[in-house]
Amino acid sequence: MSLLNYFKTTKPNSAKLAKERLQILVAHERSSRNQPSYLPALQQELLQVIQKYIQIDQDAISVHFDSDDEQETLELNIVLPEPPQS
Amino acid sequence: MSLLNYFKTTKPNSAKLAKERLQILVAHERSSRNQPSYLPALQQELLQVIQKYIQIDQDAISVHFDSDDEQETLELNIVLPEPPQS
Repeated sequence: MSLLNYFKTTKPNSAKLAKERLQILVAHERSSRNQPSYLPALQQELLQVIQKYIQIDQDAISVHFDSDDEQETLELNIVLPEPPQS
Repeated sequence: MSLLNYFKTTKPNSAKLAKERLQILVAHERSSRNQPSYLPALQQELLQVIQKYIQIDQDAISVHFDSDDEQETLELNIVLPEPPQS
């Protein structure tokens, strides 16, 4: 199963919820632990880039960071403001 | 299953491969299609941000973009250069 399919099969019924969401995942597979992690810094820059395109309420961002011997993952979940009704 | 678990269960044996990989996924759930997509522009900016931290060979980047009525997804897979052996 590709990751794109994963998103498709697990998304909630967004039409019913009428909420827009943006989800960003970063996974870094490492061959060794002897490297500094740049994911926390990257997280800040990613949010800055996204805020160029859409207005984000800081309260609407949830961040999960996980790390083990082989992989670091960063997950950002953002509930977007309601778009203007046309 | 959370997305973090998905990464954990599907990753290849990176220690055996001795390859570093960075994977970035962006999923945008939309409540309507009447909006311009900013994911292609976002993709370029994401790569620029990442290149501040790591050197990326353009040939090592694969990009997949998918869109349907309710969701757009952007997937970037990057094979990182071998880290210097210590």
